[in-house]
Amino acid sequence: MTTSPDQATSVYIGAFVDELARAGVRHVCIAPGSRSAPLALIIARHPALRTWIHLDERSAAFFALGMARALGAPVALLCTSGTAAANFLPAVVEASSAGVPLIVLTADRPPELRDVGAAQTIDQNRLYGGYAKWFVEVALADATPELLRYARALACRAVATAAAVPAGPVHLNFPFREPLVPSAIESPIGMSDGDALAWHGRPDGAPWVTVNDASPVATPETIERIAAKLSRARRPLFICGPQFDQELAAPLAALANALGAPLLVDALSQVRWGTHDRHTLIDRYDAVLRNEAIAAALIPDVVLRIGALPTSKALLQYLQCNATAQHIVLDAAEWPDPTLLAAEMVHADPRLACHQLLAHITKAGVGSDTDWLSAWRRMNTETSAALTTYLAALNEPFEGAALAAVADLLPDRSTLFVSSSMPVRDLDTFASGDKRSLRVLANRGANGIDGVVSSALGVAATRERDDGPLVLVIGDVAFYHDMNGLLAARLRMLDATIVVLNNDGGGIFSFLPQAAQPAHFEQLFGTPHGLRFEPVAELYGAQYHGADTLEALREGVTAGINGTGLHIVEMRTDRARNVVLHRAAWARVASAVTTRPDR
Amino acid sequence: MTTSPDQATSVYIGAFVDELARAGVRHVCIAPGSRSAPLALIIARHPALRTWIHLDERSAAFFALGMARALGAPVALLCTSGTAAANFLPAVVEASSAGVPLIVLTADRPPELRDVGAAQTIDQNRLYGGYAKWFVEVALADATPELLRYARALACRAVATAAAVPAGPVHLNFPFREPLVPSAIESPIGMSDGDALAWHGRPDGAPWVTVNDASPVATPETIERIAAKLSRARRPLFICGPQFDQELAAPLAALANALGAPLLVDALSQVRWGTHDRHTLIDRYDAVLRNEAIAAALIPDVVLRIGALPTSKALLQYLQCNATAQHIVLDAAEWPDPTLLAAEMVHADPRLACHQLLAHITKAGVGSDTDWLSAWRRMNTETSAALTTYLAALNEPFEGAALAAVADLLPDRSTLFVSSSMPVRDLDTFASGDKRSLRVLANRGANGIDGVVSSALGVAATRERDDGPLVLVIGDVAFYHDMNGLLAARLRMLDATIVVLNNDGGGIFSFLPQAAQPAHFEQLFGTPHGLRFEPVAELYGAQYHGADTLEALREGVTAGINGTGLHIVEMRTDRARNVVLHRAAWARVASAVTTRPDR
Repeated sequence: MTTSPDQATSVYIGAFVDELARAGVRHVCIAPGSRSAPLALIIARHPALRTWIHLDERSAAFFALGMARALGAPVALLCTSGTAAANFLPAVVEASSAGVPLIVLTADRPPELRDVGAAQTIDQNRLYGGYAKWFVEVALADATPELLRYARALACRAVATAAAVPAGPVHLNFPFREPLVPSAIESPIGMSDGDALAWHGRPDGAPWVTVNDASPVATPETIERIAAKLSRARRPLFICGPQFDQELAAPLAALANALGAPLLVDALSQVRWGTHDRHTLIDRYDAVLRNEAIAAALIPDVVLRIGALPTSKALLQYLQCNATAQHIVLDAAEWPDPTLLAAEMVHADPRLACHQLLAHITKAGVGSDTDWLSAWRRMNTETSAALTTYLAALNEPFEGAALAAVADLLPDRSTLFVSSSMPVRDLDTFASGDKRSLRVLANRGANGIDGVVSSALGVAATRERDDGPLVLVIGDVAFYHDMNGLLAARLRMLDATIVVLNNDGGGIFSFLPQAAQPAHFEQLFGTPHGLRFEPVAELYGAQYHGADTLEALREGVTAGINGTGLHIVEMRTDRARNVVLHRAAWARVASAVTTRPDR
Repeated sequence: MTTSPDQATSVYIGAFVDELARAGVRHVCIAPGSRSAPLALIIARHPALRTWIHLDERSAAFFALGMARALGAPVALLCTSGTAAANFLPAVVEASSAGVPLIVLTADRPPELRDVGAAQTIDQNRLYGGYAKWFVEVALADATPELLRYARALACRAVATAAAVPAGPVHLNFPFREPLVPSAIESPIGMSDGDALAWHGRPDGAPWVTVNDASPVATPETIERIAAKLSRARRPLFICGPQFDQELAAPLAALANALGAPLLVDALSQVRWGTHDRHTLIDRYDAVLRNEAIAAALIPDVVLRIGALPTSKALLQYLQCNATAQHIVLDAAEWPDPTLLAAEMVHADPRLACHQLLAHITKAGVGSDTDWLSAWRRMNTETSAALTTYLAALNEPFEGAALAAVADLLPDRSTLFVSSSMPVRDLDTFASGDKRSLRVLANRGANGIDGVVSSALGVAATRERDDGPLVLVIGDVAFYHDMNGLLAARLRMLDATIVVLNNDGGGIFSFLPQAAQPAHFEQLFGTPHGLRFEPVAELYGAQYHGADTLEALREGVTAGINGTGLHIVEMRTDRARNVVLHRAAWARVASAVTTRPDR
């Protein structure tokens, strides 16, 4: 069989794209371009793939990241050659750091047009360095049986590699010769039976390779030893940092309860909210541990840590002060221990490990002091009461109160996306957990403020009929950084509510030592920009709600979560006043919580 | 002498920063962050350094690129750790491709906090891969005499390496331990004589190392041989593509004139406009060579090419059709030959080489046919007349006419910045040269549409008292891509006029083969966004001029170039109509130009 070059491109790329779909990919984010036309045209025609067009590749990649995070499955991403591909890097870095599966497809010139000054041509070989789990310089199109098998196997491997623990981005670089617009494309994949050029893969839509990946499971010996250590502990402490397995909460909470261990749950742990056993849950530790006297009275002997670095700096400092405790870190594959205190690193899927450990815990074998857990629970209750009273008395625009208010307003099955740097911290400090099923997401791989709008809208784009609303809370600098991401909401009429806490600059720096350097503080760190965002709502056709009070904020958010389309709720706050109100909250907690022993 | 860690950081970073200034750096673009505080605070206090704060690192880097392009000297760029640094990549790629000297400074965690899940920590080692000419993982701060010499020598090397031919970006990654805010900073560099910690470098402000770099000069034998080839040519053709040496025009035009060679001058060649010898200049070749009959009648025997790939696709195709000519490529260091036709690659500074070649040309030795040059000149004149008549009759919003109109309005010593993808092409086709001194800039390294607003504003930021205005012409997609760049104009009250040709999507695709694929054309390539940009002007406090006609466009641009602050002139055009009007122009040229031999 002989084929023309453009037919070969169609058949070869057709096989690859078809196989992406067979391997489970459902969404492709596409930034327009010419060199990428063969992939774009075939993706657009594939009946099982949904396309999402973005004009800014940086936003496109973060949108794909948000989708992949929400779906827990690989999402593909396509752009043309040149700096377009370079704009993907921030999201590729975040995907790598946060364990999010992405399939990055870049179009490139063929070898003869590289490094000779051709237009829009850069060296795309390993463009993302170590951030791509797998890089493939894909073969030029050809329609031989061997190359069609290669194209199909390549797609299966790309999907499986991106999803394998730890998940992350893979990068396939496709060289294309002209013609870039295949003529044979008139016969789309999956819609023509009689195609002699082997468009079709295995029967019944099966993938070319069904990849059966291993799951990281601790050995029985490890489980037995760790279970014994935990059982023997008198003052065991569990800490669950940011993680995105919605099924971890139940076995982890059950294990903590069986051991009488306080379970400190980060706002991003997916354990703070939910219907699982809530008896040992501690959600006010950030405020509690800011008081040195209280922190010093709570000395754990065994610490079990799951998830990424906790959001709370007070907790991190508390851990560092408790170096003599046995620190056990449980993670599927990474080494999340910036304290450098881990005595045991357990590489295993945390959910499976909790189930296994639970099976080894006997009531008789548990040695924890009952007053250990009760002291934590009492302090948590006292702190909660103090903070609730404090916030209830405020109506002035305070960022901590805003996060608590937004979290309280969310109906069951909502998703709350929070931005770095202050919203995630304020949520962690000021929002208390309950039985609602809430998903709380953030870009906490590299903790960047970039791409947050797009990531949240990517989550919104995956919303199913019975899901609750998506609300994003974001500061002004992060919002400004990714305003381009709002175009997706306009083009696809996504339903989302974005709460912008506008303190006219970098609010977090007022909490850091540079705040004591007034000479250059506003110039280098405060960085006021003077922007008000109502024109941005107008530009993108969003509903705008200006909020001068917490009450107005609640009204705006309520309108957003009950409405359709994009809602932007902007609350202006004052950076200096914000610091004062934070410190007043902590002082209130310190005076409300007693350190008497629980007997 | 013993110093505390924070004093050591001050002294060490102080030496580095001071030496950047001594080596000639005058501008530092800074994105705010915490880990980068030691560098930011000392840079801000250095009396010889001017700081430019940006909240979006991608825009910051393109702003620095524009400054460095305009100044022809290295500009420094600073950000904190994490994805902030990843956002620099697009501009770093462009700087590498376009030969623009940048000094990229990134802050990082110290070794003990890397790859252990610490916040905002990514692997920044060789983050920019091969795009950085030089990467240094900088030593941790220490104030020993050896390390202070290292810090000073490092700065000198960084500046010299970035500037050395071919210029490009260098990347220095600085690990910092806490405390990040030095206490010793109260004694700023260059303002305290009695500082015992050796803040000061060599006497009289001399750099630690005065770097004397080589210049690429062709050997006498090469010059003699090339001069002989050019002299013997009967139909020599000179082509000057995009290049940014403002001093090349005079010797190049003189050489072309001495040889009787038509000199085809790209709109970005810095030769189309100016007071140099204009006798052999051909600026209408794009329209001329679109006609195959005309192109076939113009057969060169020797082609001398200088600069990057010409903007004109018609010219590229014409060159490819003339494979039997001797192609000589003259470039300082690169291999700019996507035609793969070069028989001679001369690596030498083009300006120096032109001077040397000129010295070898004798009137008696020149063998060119006089009717060769006269045929080109006549066709250029006829084309110019045809296009001028064609454009003069139009008042409807046509993009080609817009570029011609804007170019015509510019006063002497103006800078015109043109965006990829259509404005640069329309300028090349429709704007004719004259004796005005105009600088015409674009990001033509990788031909991206990203960062264009910031690059142009970076140029505006370098404007001196007797420079003319800065005007940017940009399409809607590129404008949208870098709207964040507008913040710099607001914050620093920059004077600039931005002409947005808003055809609601990707106009260039209507000229490409995919336009014949109506099924998915608008979805994948046309990509209409529906944005009107008046709210953007409101957001950033710019003066907005909506232009429905070319006359209104001229009024808006005139107001901008005579006014202060940022002016945004938006002209809506229609993509389909735009193609029709382009093709009508080419038809007009084809009928106006005769191919009769010149005798």
